[in-house]
Amino acid sequence: MHVLDQKAHKPHERLADHLKDDLSQVDAMIRTRMASEHAPRIPEVTAHLVEAGGKRLRPMLTLAAARLCGYEGGHHVHLATAVEFIHTATLLHDDVVDESGQRRGRPTANLLWDNKSSVLVGDYLFARSFQLMTEADSLRVLKVLSNASATITEGEVLQLTAAQDITTTEDTYFKVVRGKTAALFAAATEVGGILAGVSEERIRALHDYGDALGIAFQVVDDLLDFWGGDATGKNVGDDFRERKLTLPIIKAIATADDDERAFWKRTLERNDQRDGDLEHALSLMSGHGALEATREAALGWSQRAKDSLVGLPEGPILDMLADIADYVVARLR
Amino acid sequence: MHVLDQKAHKPHERLADHLKDDLSQVDAMIRTRMASEHAPRIPEVTAHLVEAGGKRLRPMLTLAAARLCGYEGGHHVHLATAVEFIHTATLLHDDVVDESGQRRGRPTANLLWDNKSSVLVGDYLFARSFQLMTEADSLRVLKVLSNASATITEGEVLQLTAAQDITTTEDTYFKVVRGKTAALFAAATEVGGILAGVSEERIRALHDYGDALGIAFQVVDDLLDFWGGDATGKNVGDDFRERKLTLPIIKAIATADDDERAFWKRTLERNDQRDGDLEHALSLMSGHGALEATREAALGWSQRAKDSLVGLPEGPILDMLADIADYVVARLR
Repeated sequence: MHVLDQKAHKPHERLADHLKDDLSQVDAMIRTRMASEHAPRIPEVTAHLVEAGGKRLRPMLTLAAARLCGYEGGHHVHLATAVEFIHTATLLHDDVVDESGQRRGRPTANLLWDNKSSVLVGDYLFARSFQLMTEADSLRVLKVLSNASATITEGEVLQLTAAQDITTTEDTYFKVVRGKTAALFAAATEVGGILAGVSEERIRALHDYGDALGIAFQVVDDLLDFWGGDATGKNVGDDFRERKLTLPIIKAIATADDDERAFWKRTLERNDQRDGDLEHALSLMSGHGALEATREAALGWSQRAKDSLVGLPEGPILDMLADIADYVVARLR
Repeated sequence: MHVLDQKAHKPHERLADHLKDDLSQVDAMIRTRMASEHAPRIPEVTAHLVEAGGKRLRPMLTLAAARLCGYEGGHHVHLATAVEFIHTATLLHDDVVDESGQRRGRPTANLLWDNKSSVLVGDYLFARSFQLMTEADSLRVLKVLSNASATITEGEVLQLTAAQDITTTEDTYFKVVRGKTAALFAAATEVGGILAGVSEERIRALHDYGDALGIAFQVVDDLLDFWGGDATGKNVGDDFRERKLTLPIIKAIATADDDERAFWKRTLERNDQRDGDLEHALSLMSGHGALEATREAALGWSQRAKDSLVGLPEGPILDMLADIADYVVARLR
């Protein structure tokens, strides 16, 4: 029990412990359903990602929401697995889109195999996720998760077209974040409530919690890209180098004078980045309070996530969901 | 009416004429559903493909199957649109996987935009197709089409891993073809019958027709790659250059002597292709009767498609479906 006790101060690990029977069923289902009778390449590629030590945060949210709402059946395992497959599929496709070489400190699938395998195995997992959903026998769940899937992709495409454009607004940024990150968090919690058959108010509360948690999560991620000092597996300034318009940069550009504007134009739009540019970008973001303002935005979304929980059934799961909302921003210290 | 009369000897054009009200609803739904409020890049890329003058054969099969079985509702339009979106998504992803520069004689989306857009817009259409399916309110339809989607991708991955491997068997080839082509044909016709609520025997017959038609279609396509003389928009020998193990090549390798085996190993496995190699490959395939045997296989599958139609409601639609099975192989003259 020592190991568990030591880990127990991280709330998602306490939640994983609380849900360990459900989670081990999800793990078993992931292994069964990622198999392919005809194409052994598929489980190879998937295993590389699925076993890379992700936190299984999204499927855990589905399990937690269902159990919180008193669900006693077994279909939450199918839906949690479906949610993890959608997430894994988007990671595989993201790495192709971003031309990434590393994820979670390990080489990406597109590097180990090829872009082709990443595209096709992502498609396979996406199709598998819909198969799993049909087994839960709820058209409403399918509607929520197919809507989320469309929104995820819209967010990714919007991010693609907004990249390298220094006129990108905070409004566009939040549309991107709602799509690429929050949509799946929100759907993950919402379908848990739908499965349990709770009231529309509670389903809405679960959706809002997932939405706000997902936004907080992504804003923190974008801030840590510059803040550093966290085991994100990313290098400080990756987003700057990839010319992604994230919240800290957007806030810094909003208050830029002419010289600073020229700097952002050169580095982000014209892709002319030189030694010392990242350091200069950091000093601009810090000088204009953009990092601090981004931190406050993250704290605000964390608070909204906790506020959404009011009215849901009280107990240890609810407390842990609130703690997770705190923990997401605690990475900022 | 002259233009229609002139075109009317092609059976898929007669079927399109017969179903023109349904088809114009499908066209309208394609335009509405490919739109994206947030990401205008999406309809740009989709329009490039959707309006490229494809024959809409797959959605037409869904409409035809539903009408053949007496369906009077409106959900066949949703399902036909979903089928076309799945097809378009796979084309977008295929062009990334094949690193293609042309499709139907026009530059591919991955060339006009980039691989990123092709991957993400494909994902978007795939998600949209599942949204459309949920609107038809049939879990069984969702099961059939999500199974087909998984099978399509398995076929593509199997093709990827079988490429450049001269030990590929006919059995593997047909698994690939059943996946990448026949699965969607079979699902397209099957869901029309499910929607109409016909007997299991008739649903099975519709499935079998689509399956056999799809296989015939792909075998003909693979043969025309060498046979040429058809407006396929492909160049003679593309598959040979891309080292795809299609049926004519597999049949030629099966009867190869040592010298010929060395030739196939050099050109397909070691990718050492020289001037005159395509011509030599053609003479080997022709000399061993591999092209003729492939043609006979295609004729056999066309016949199986027609045989499957026995027991389905007689009338003009059934006759046109039989004519389409003939027409697919008539491209071989």
